[in-house]
Amino acid sequence: MTDSFSDYVTESGSQWLSREELDSARERLPILYVDAVPVRVGEGGTVTAFGLLLRVTGHGDISRALVSGRVLYHERVRTALIRHLEKDLGPLALPRVPPAPQPFTIAEYFPTPGVTPFHDPRQHAVSLAYVVPVEGDCSPQQDALELTWFSPEEVREPTVMAELANGQSVLLQQALAHLGV
Amino acid sequence: MTDSFSDYVTESGSQWLSREELDSARERLPILYVDAVPVRVGEGGTVTAFGLLLRVTGHGDISRALVSGRVLYHERVRTALIRHLEKDLGPLALPRVPPAPQPFTIAEYFPTPGVTPFHDPRQHAVSLAYVVPVEGDCSPQQDALELTWFSPEEVREPTVMAELANGQSVLLQQALAHLGV
Amino acid sequence: MTDSFSDYVTESGSQWLSREELDSARERLPILYVDAVPVRVGEGGTVTAFGLLLRVTGHGDISRALVSGRVLYHERVRTALIRHLEKDLGPLALPRVPPAPQPFTIAEYFPTPGVTPFHDPRQHAVSLAYVVPVEGDCSPQQDALELTWFSPEEVREPTVMAELANGQSVLLQQALAHLGV
Amino acid sequence: MTDSFSDYVTESGSQWLSREELDSARERLPILYVDAVPVRVGEGGTVTAFGLLLRVTGHGDISRALVSGRVLYHERVRTALIRHLEKDLGPLALPRVPPAPQPFTIAEYFPTPGVTPFHDPRQHAVSLAYVVPVEGDCSPQQDALELTWFSPEEVREPTVMAELANGQSVLLQQALAHLGV
Repeated sequence: MTDSFSDYVTESGSQWLSREELDSARERLPILYVDAVPVRVGEGGTVTAFGLLLRVTGHGDISRALVSGRVLYHERVRTALIRHLEKDLGPLALPRVPPAPQPFTIAEYFPTPGVTPFHDPRQHAVSLAYVVPVEGDCSPQQDALELTWFSPEEVREPTVMAELANGQSVLLQQALAHLGV
Repeated sequence: MTDSFSDYVTESGSQWLSREELDSARERLPILYVDAVPVRVGEGGTVTAFGLLLRVTGHGDISRALVSGRVLYHERVRTALIRHLEKDLGPLALPRVPPAPQPFTIAEYFPTPGVTPFHDPRQHAVSLAYVVPVEGDCSPQQDALELTWFSPEEVREPTVMAELANGQSVLLQQALAHLGV
Repeated sequence: MTDSFSDYVTESGSQWLSREELDSARERLPILYVDAVPVRVGEGGTVTAFGLLLRVTGHGDISRALVSGRVLYHERVRTALIRHLEKDLGPLALPRVPPAPQPFTIAEYFPTPGVTPFHDPRQHAVSLAYVVPVEGDCSPQQDALELTWFSPEEVREPTVMAELANGQSVLLQQALAHLGV
Repeated sequence: MTDSFSDYVTESGSQWLSREELDSARERLPILYVDAVPVRVGEGGTVTAFGLLLRVTGHGDISRALVSGRVLYHERVRTALIRHLEKDLGPLALPRVPPAPQPFTIAEYFPTPGVTPFHDPRQHAVSLAYVVPVEGDCSPQQDALELTWFSPEEVREPTVMAELANGQSVLLQQALAHLGV
């Protein structure tokens, strides 16, 4: 649940929001997001690895995160998914977004903790969640320090799960359950 | 894809949007909606009827519609579904919203026709779509003239489908396909 | 993954299998099953309780189980779901099987442990898994000693999960993830 | 819904069924199948083409078909999907089976016409249905005369749909609805 600086640059046109306008909208409307769980898929279609980003938060803490970001005005959900995956994993990541629009779940991030497992202090965001196989070379971009691939066994370790912020460990567990791994 | 007058009343508090603010946001952000396909379910769990609203549009035309409306700030998606179903079908409708948050599809309504099958001249809306069994007594409310129940055979008649506006005939066909009827 | 005595009685007609024929088929073909996770749904569509059966296994052990059973020749999947729910929870259980045929996942039970998380020493069974709200009075039937309702917090306790046999704790966790609780 | 000669060869081991045994089981048990809708996916994850096989039926008629076949004893569903796709589309087809086991729907083929939209005179088959992107070179194999790629517009033509046997036009329409095209 991050917006990088480039989001504001991209959106500087008249159709999009200034930072002030976005801040104002965030206090008034649920904001539409996408969450992507990047995976490596082996022969036979089994998931062999899960990709997590390492980020520095606004408070200087380090935490892990899924690929996540806003859907822009007049942008297709699928296009937003690809844009955020390429923004975080690099232009050579080759994400294979699912051909069907049905998300495997939705995550409701509330500014008030405890309403749902998901929390975002800045806003009420509703996120469409997808598992996305990536086939190319990934390199962390922007404000991500690192991209780490974890095996299905590693990723469910409590120490890894504990490093995910904003309740995204729940979303990752939902993805693991959906994948049957 | 309608907002009744009551929406603005409900939202007159400081946390929600004035009509002007909502109009402004609609030109800048995708707005989160829910679409519900109300169904009657017979013994054995088979769908026996589909409920369509008859509405007068702003231009005085008559068209049919699914139950549809905005998700408000700090409102759960499930709560929004129930609120819109009770607003359109009456307080005794007893909607049984699905216990899982996964929608059967999403509908992307664009202000520009032709981007997707879904069109909303007022805004870019992204809608989470659910099939919702209703078990109680339904009576049309607010700006709906009538609620009509169609059998699975009747509802797929081209004359009925043609009366649905904004591409909702596509969403209804997606619901029929999802239900396997 | 149990077949009660009544299954064989029901199937004594010429179209169905004798116990010997079923035993033979079980060594040769994947057998089609359904798994149901019975839930109580509160106001607003949230799941308030999960129902688990307490059974005595063939070896005299006690274990917990989901509602589970075979789909018969010329039987609809939906009918099989209702039949097994009423067989295990009683004729007044009022199960509300989902109107859409899409299962939330499939469980592949292998006779060899370790191929998947699911294991059935008697056979290769592939099960279509559904979450089913039940609205009526439930009382354990047949070879079930007890039906216990657990809150979402209770049911994820390791002690409860450990009492589920054949890998059904994984299936229950998948249901919890699918429901977002 | 076809079994090629190679199926019987593959299954000649003691664990699998002779043709006589399979014929006998088919009169007694629902048989587990998979159905695959092969698609070409363009940039941005949109489906650009649907692949249909042209077959000669047992009666010398020509009809179109999806990729379809049995799941064998001790075979994973995912492995069966890949096996049938490679059997029908050739070893260089590079099918990308979805990483999650949830089918987009199930198709219940009954030997009696009219119970469901799906019909198979030889057996009661329950099929798990998946949309599968194929990235490689496809060439029809075995008893398929031809593989034809249709655009989303072409494939929904009544003349094309009418060439699909056993109710598979309904399954294809369900796939189109699921994909939102």
